[in-house]
Amino acid sequence: MTDRTTIVLETIMSRKSVRNFTGEPVTKACLLALLKAGMAAPSARNRQPLAFVAVTERKLLDALGDGLPYTKMLYKAGACIVVCGDTSTDLQQGASDLWHQDAAAATENILIAAEAMRLGAVWSALYPMPERENHVRKLLMLPAGVDPFSIIPVGHPAGEDLPKDKFRAEKIHWESW
Amino acid sequence: MTDRTTIVLETIMSRKSVRNFTGEPVTKACLLALLKAGMAAPSARNRQPLAFVAVTERKLLDALGDGLPYTKMLYKAGACIVVCGDTSTDLQQGASDLWHQDAAAATENILIAAEAMRLGAVWSALYPMPERENHVRKLLMLPAGVDPFSIIPVGHPAGEDLPKDKFRAEKIHWESW
Repeated sequence: MTDRTTIVLETIMSRKSVRNFTGEPVTKACLLALLKAGMAAPSARNRQPLAFVAVTERKLLDALGDGLPYTKMLYKAGACIVVCGDTSTDLQQGASDLWHQDAAAATENILIAAEAMRLGAVWSALYPMPERENHVRKLLMLPAGVDPFSIIPVGHPAGEDLPKDKFRAEKIHWESW
Repeated sequence: MTDRTTIVLETIMSRKSVRNFTGEPVTKACLLALLKAGMAAPSARNRQPLAFVAVTERKLLDALGDGLPYTKMLYKAGACIVVCGDTSTDLQQGASDLWHQDAAAATENILIAAEAMRLGAVWSALYPMPERENHVRKLLMLPAGVDPFSIIPVGHPAGEDLPKDKFRAEKIHWESW
């Protein structure tokens, strides 16, 4: 294996859900790198049906956390990214049932990029939970046709969250079940 | 940025859908590295509801391709991985509407790992297309409760497929829409 291979595989294996942050801010340059990684994910028929809202304002991060019972880590996060599907455009014709998969791929890219940048991040689901979606929609003023999919708190890790070893040989079936 | 950051971000940006393969086989060791990367993806409430079928037999790869109109690259692929949700276990209680997101994250991890290993791979959707799902289910003898989500042909890239620049600044909204 080359160094490149080793480094990328190690980063994938060491990605963890970071829920404890130092409270330090996250720069716009860092967020932009994460967003670029998100946009580089594949999409069904290359429709690229996603849009992203990046939030750094303290008050707005706190207000988002207030209405999301499982995303209270927003109070200490330096920023967050909301991954959305933009179904208002004709991009979605014929692929309307696949944009959630595209949004999940973009979310995962952002998480791996954050790990590579020694930032912490965690995937918090909004879809398919209408109460959570509506809370985010209202605060971020999402227009009709733009649907929030996930919210990713981002920050500097406090160091308490560690990767899990989730490898289970019995989950692999060779040639057929 | 450290070397590690640069290398991982470059790998994410250079990942592409590889549809043209040399026809060379893919070793079991390589497939295992891809599967480990897939299992390292996050899952809702850490339920880890996925299972994987890895196929290397020429006849089976061809038979899979015969019934999948958009996955004919299987004929030249050295292997494929089918990402499945295992809803037969109690893993799924309370998270049954989220396993597709977990499967998408695992699929994306496998694609990035393949790029890092200088292999080629492409995400081909099975869910939610019952005809495709049934074809794969039958050939791989998937039991009831195990649902195929995606099929990922893997091989040595012929060099024809290049990454796309999908960055669009207008898809980023700062603080709110």
